[in-house]
Amino acid sequence: MTDYKPTERTRIRRRPERGSYDRDLVYRIIDEALLCHVAFVLDGEPHVLPTTVTRIANDIYIHGSNKNGLLTALAQGATASIAITHTDGVVVGRSGFGCSLEYRSVVAFGTATLVPPEDKERIMNEVLQDIIPGFGGRRLKPSELATTQILKFPLDEVSAKVRNHGNSDVQGDYELDLWAGVIPLSIVAGEPVSDQKLKTGIPVPEYAQTYHR
Amino acid sequence: MTDYKPTERTRIRRRPERGSYDRDLVYRIIDEALLCHVAFVLDGEPHVLPTTVTRIANDIYIHGSNKNGLLTALAQGATASIAITHTDGVVVGRSGFGCSLEYRSVVAFGTATLVPPEDKERIMNEVLQDIIPGFGGRRLKPSELATTQILKFPLDEVSAKVRNHGNSDVQGDYELDLWAGVIPLSIVAGEPVSDQKLKTGIPVPEYAQTYHR
Repeated sequence: MTDYKPTERTRIRRRPERGSYDRDLVYRIIDEALLCHVAFVLDGEPHVLPTTVTRIANDIYIHGSNKNGLLTALAQGATASIAITHTDGVVVGRSGFGCSLEYRSVVAFGTATLVPPEDKERIMNEVLQDIIPGFGGRRLKPSELATTQILKFPLDEVSAKVRNHGNSDVQGDYELDLWAGVIPLSIVAGEPVSDQKLKTGIPVPEYAQTYHR
Repeated sequence: MTDYKPTERTRIRRRPERGSYDRDLVYRIIDEALLCHVAFVLDGEPHVLPTTVTRIANDIYIHGSNKNGLLTALAQGATASIAITHTDGVVVGRSGFGCSLEYRSVVAFGTATLVPPEDKERIMNEVLQDIIPGFGGRRLKPSELATTQILKFPLDEVSAKVRNHGNSDVQGDYELDLWAGVIPLSIVAGEPVSDQKLKTGIPVPEYAQTYHR
């Protein structure tokens, strides 16, 4: 797989040493995420839409109701800037100037196309397996697929940015009698809570017990 | 405290029953967050900037280097749409149509003003205590404050959206022999990792050992 080529919109200007156009890295960052934040312009104003994201091959997909006006505006061809961000830790420096976050992020620019009706069931099943690996619910009905719009964005203009090098303090600060280090942060899944209306005798499935991101 | 008034930009159109203009709720959602995603328009194109966020009174603050071009564009008065999103759980339905996320989110619209030099140290100290409660590093130098730009956005046009009601399946699905429930998600802080260049004999401070969001 070849890496992405920087464009005018994706070239990392600030701290370029943290930037990357490595396709594998971009895919890993996206695949770990539940959410993306989609920015776009509507009637001259900026909008930002937090929504679930799934990558299939070199495209990412978001979806929602046909009645979602922001999604409809995106489906009509508004250019989008899509961010996916993981916060991996808090860097505690010897001064505030040495404090930072450890993070991995991806920003993609692109324009959506609507997934055609004949592909909707297949894509939604992949989206469900991405969000809930092992999910085994009943099949989606044609009427349910009909009220859902699925938007596909090609991953063409993409960059990643990673900070993972731990502390980086100002030269003289290393002599100070102060602690410095990284507090790691991670997303943890808790014990599944069964629906109160669950039929008796249905156990929590293994995919729910072992859920992780 | 009075609640926010919906405006044309913040009125919740999609699933209004999940929407809120409750000021306390908005503050709680912001205060729990490390990150926000700032969307804005630059040369007609949408941009999205993930960055740390701190609320002080009825304003939110973001900051970065003077050399950060996106921040500079925002400081020059570009309208911003700022999202703060917590993912609290994965809702596993009896069908894909009943799957969802439990979440709390805030979206604010506003225009930044630059924090003037005489207020920078005070604001940065509050930002540091917000990100790392109990932090006790050395005082910021005037030269460090001079290379930092701090942007303040008033919280005027704001809405919150919350989904926290657990499962909500299609009527007939409750008869199916399928599990349904919620898998809770939370952000957990791990054991602090001391800087390799730490002077000997400096213990991990309590604020780092007990860090949580």
